[in-house]
Amino acid sequence: MDGATARKTISEVNLMDYEEFIKVFGNVIEHCLLCAAAVWRYRPFKSVKHLYEEICTFVDQLPGSGREGILRSHPDLAGRVAMQGQLTAESTREQRTAGMADLTPQERDHLLQMNKRYREKFGFPFVICARLNRKDVILESLEVRLDNPAEVELEKGIAEVKKICQLRLSDLLESEAVNCRL
Amino acid sequence: MDGATARKTISEVNLMDYEEFIKVFGNVIEHCLLCAAAVWRYRPFKSVKHLYEEICTFVDQLPGSGREGILRSHPDLAGRVAMQGQLTAESTREQRTAGMADLTPQERDHLLQMNKRYREKFGFPFVICARLNRKDVILESLEVRLDNPAEVELEKGIAEVKKICQLRLSDLLESEAVNCRL
Repeated sequence: MDGATARKTISEVNLMDYEEFIKVFGNVIEHCLLCAAAVWRYRPFKSVKHLYEEICTFVDQLPGSGREGILRSHPDLAGRVAMQGQLTAESTREQRTAGMADLTPQERDHLLQMNKRYREKFGFPFVICARLNRKDVILESLEVRLDNPAEVELEKGIAEVKKICQLRLSDLLESEAVNCRL
Repeated sequence: MDGATARKTISEVNLMDYEEFIKVFGNVIEHCLLCAAAVWRYRPFKSVKHLYEEICTFVDQLPGSGREGILRSHPDLAGRVAMQGQLTAESTREQRTAGMADLTPQERDHLLQMNKRYREKFGFPFVICARLNRKDVILESLEVRLDNPAEVELEKGIAEVKKICQLRLSDLLESEAVNCRL
């Protein structure tokens, strides 16, 4: 989020009409507007934590194909979409923070190759909360996680999606800690 | 779909990479890209019917909040989004076919008012497959459906979403009948 945009309070969120709510929160789970559309029914939200937990509960209630679909909606780190400048605003900032724009050509080739292996093995991309990890940790995690069984990676990927969501919410919402279930 | 764009065969669909698949099918359920992202796991599709049925199954497996979220992702007929020319390409064609662009000012006011009552009562908009109904039938259905309980309308709305999906698929895919579960 642009630093110039004021963070909302939960009371302001509860006063939003549906269109504004979707405009603000439609991408807290990357490309999955349905998550925000679903939790709209739980207004008024008692706190930022309440909003966050309803999103997490919705994600957890999805069938496995839907949780995989959420992972598939995430772009590869430093992948084609990033190279073509077509990431969402949120992903652009997140990948930059993790140093994905500063990879050496060798590191980038290595990452692309491992991303490809990961996607071929699991049918969804490697997802990690870029803002909580630097590039060396990301490269190491990818290597380690490639050895996991699919059900473990589905779970780990979704846990990272929730961390990404938590940080996106904290960019959008006033100070009250979003600090739950991570 | 533009008449000039060739319809795909199911074999061509099965050869698509994920990005192309999402580009083509990402809006067969309005604004709910997650539905297409979820069913990607069921390739290769045996038929158009198979693809359609997996989408329906995914929708049916969503928690109630998610099915409501799908309805909320649909625009009002002849509503503000339509008047501002901001509908998706698919919805623009569908609403035009149903004569929504040819409402008299009185009919439009009446529709807007009933849409508002419907949304206030149920928490989601009135959804009907515009291509299968003319404007007088739509106005009449809205009046009748306003009296239903919420759980009936959730079910009826989702049945209409599936009809819309079926027709969108038949615009995109080669002749093989998509003829199931309606």
